[in-house]
Amino acid sequence: MLLDLGASSIDLTRQLCDIDSVSGNETAIADAIEASLAASPHLVVTRHADAIVARTNLGRAQRVVIAGHIDTVPVNDNLPTRFETVDGVDYLWGRGTVDMKAGVAVQLKLAAELEAPAVDITWIWYDHEEVSESLNGLGRLARENLELLHGDFAILGEPTRAEIEGGCNGNARVEVRAFGTRAHSARAWVGHNAIHDLAPALVKLAAYTPSEVEVDGLVYREGLNAVGISGGVAGNVIPDEAMVHVNYRFAPSRTGEEAVAFLREFFDGYEVTVVDLAEGARPGLDSALAQQLVALVGVEATPKYGWTDVARFSALGMPAVNYGPGDPLKAHADDERVPLSQIESCERGLREWLSQA
Amino acid sequence: MLLDLGASSIDLTRQLCDIDSVSGNETAIADAIEASLAASPHLVVTRHADAIVARTNLGRAQRVVIAGHIDTVPVNDNLPTRFETVDGVDYLWGRGTVDMKAGVAVQLKLAAELEAPAVDITWIWYDHEEVSESLNGLGRLARENLELLHGDFAILGEPTRAEIEGGCNGNARVEVRAFGTRAHSARAWVGHNAIHDLAPALVKLAAYTPSEVEVDGLVYREGLNAVGISGGVAGNVIPDEAMVHVNYRFAPSRTGEEAVAFLREFFDGYEVTVVDLAEGARPGLDSALAQQLVALVGVEATPKYGWTDVARFSALGMPAVNYGPGDPLKAHADDERVPLSQIESCERGLREWLSQA
Repeated sequence: MLLDLGASSIDLTRQLCDIDSVSGNETAIADAIEASLAASPHLVVTRHADAIVARTNLGRAQRVVIAGHIDTVPVNDNLPTRFETVDGVDYLWGRGTVDMKAGVAVQLKLAAELEAPAVDITWIWYDHEEVSESLNGLGRLARENLELLHGDFAILGEPTRAEIEGGCNGNARVEVRAFGTRAHSARAWVGHNAIHDLAPALVKLAAYTPSEVEVDGLVYREGLNAVGISGGVAGNVIPDEAMVHVNYRFAPSRTGEEAVAFLREFFDGYEVTVVDLAEGARPGLDSALAQQLVALVGVEATPKYGWTDVARFSALGMPAVNYGPGDPLKAHADDERVPLSQIESCERGLREWLSQA
Repeated sequence: MLLDLGASSIDLTRQLCDIDSVSGNETAIADAIEASLAASPHLVVTRHADAIVARTNLGRAQRVVIAGHIDTVPVNDNLPTRFETVDGVDYLWGRGTVDMKAGVAVQLKLAAELEAPAVDITWIWYDHEEVSESLNGLGRLARENLELLHGDFAILGEPTRAEIEGGCNGNARVEVRAFGTRAHSARAWVGHNAIHDLAPALVKLAAYTPSEVEVDGLVYREGLNAVGISGGVAGNVIPDEAMVHVNYRFAPSRTGEEAVAFLREFFDGYEVTVVDLAEGARPGLDSALAQQLVALVGVEATPKYGWTDVARFSALGMPAVNYGPGDPLKAHADDERVPLSQIESCERGLREWLSQA
């Protein structure tokens, strides 16, 4: 199957969305992208499982990496796509329109059209972003073909309402445990109630005011929340163990290690087990390339709260931002839909920047 | 199979224990009891499923009901029984020795031997005490043959270290729920965390000092405990619901309705759902029959903390006490064992009381 890369980016978004590509099922869309790029001799295209990398090699002084994932969360009666107008705004509705095939469509169209950009470009379209970290296609490329990710700046096409969102918060999850002594609840004083011992932890969590941390000019809002709680043996037993599962979203001013140290101190007296840890990413807006992009987009850059793959570039020492059409709050929603104007706006912004950068 | 009711109560305990009778599997032991009592013409024996009722009809002024359950919790490599001596104390070791075949053995032996007791006696041996309330054999008799339970006083042979334990605490279980608003944990401020809202409930539980309540001269120690806690949707979602499962053991000065009212007030602001409620039983030690028994046993009566079937008699307006060999803390334990001296002591106490009451 061939994509019509000469169509508008709106139409191309629709073509991409209507190829079902729930995580694990990206082969058809990767085939279509690979085949469609064969007509662009200015690109060196390589395939890595279901990830496609397309590079210009023009000998420019700088190289930028522009990436997007081609998988979606499961479809829920929201394919094929349709156009709809709500309160006078025109949308393309359906799974993947926001997260993130509109971004991929803009990238694909520009990849094919920009034969002589002002910078060299490495375009990356990758699989398995919406599932386990261990499957992530960009992570796989970083492990197996690290040289392909190198560049002076990176843009990820995640939805940002066509504005620049810099960096991302880090993400840690810990299990906080209290231990007691089991006993029959008719003689509770023989035992020690581990659930009751979670009270101080919950009180601290409920009372905690998340920090707002300025990093490179952007203010990151943190979050510290119980996302799970469990404990109990039976209706007549004093429980000897209880656990609260805590998620900490921390500003990129902190390393993962520092975030864990904070959590261990915050939950002093409890057993704290780290079950997930992802570094944040500084916004990287101090680079000249980023400043040109921000100036072109014309809207003040803001922080990205959720964790995104920009952190992988940040870990390589590359400044990286998110820039794509669609409201992130509509990602994964059953009524996922992207304003058409934001697709056009991103195409325009990226095209101008790549032409003059 | 016939039991040797002429053997000592210790030997008879062993005979009963070595008939495996985990709840639901009581037919063999009920058959043996029924068959063995056929040689006692002073008793009118009736069978009701796997419950056996044996009554004297001597026209005495007073009738006492003496009951015990014949089932046990599951065996765990602790059958057949054996004799053992620990720190100079002789025990019969094995499943059911404490809870409560030693008590049943004493009752069976006296049922066969006491042809002319001073009071009429209704002996009841019943099934399914260790499982769901809806299966309880004494409960079934109360529903289907209520007249068989009537009397002036009742004794349940549950383990009390051969002392008199009066009445029992009531038992309520409630689910206490908090509700919030789901959100992605990267933007927690969009939602409302239901787990955090459990903090005040846990603080109150942890700080609560259980009451000690005097009822008919006995001091009942209450208990208010979380026995379970749950909540959480996923590691990146602010939870919209959380629940703490609370067990309240309340003194028999309170009705179940009053206990529930206390809980609703205690957890004001939460949704409180009653999942289990059993009335307590006042000790009934003010009756003349009870006072004679206490005097004979020669040890000050104490309250029973755990809920027992005495509450069924209490609900019928009959005073009722627990009196049986074995330490209740050894009930259900893998090293369940009964001191032989307590079996003999209970046999002696009950025999004297029934002869002179």
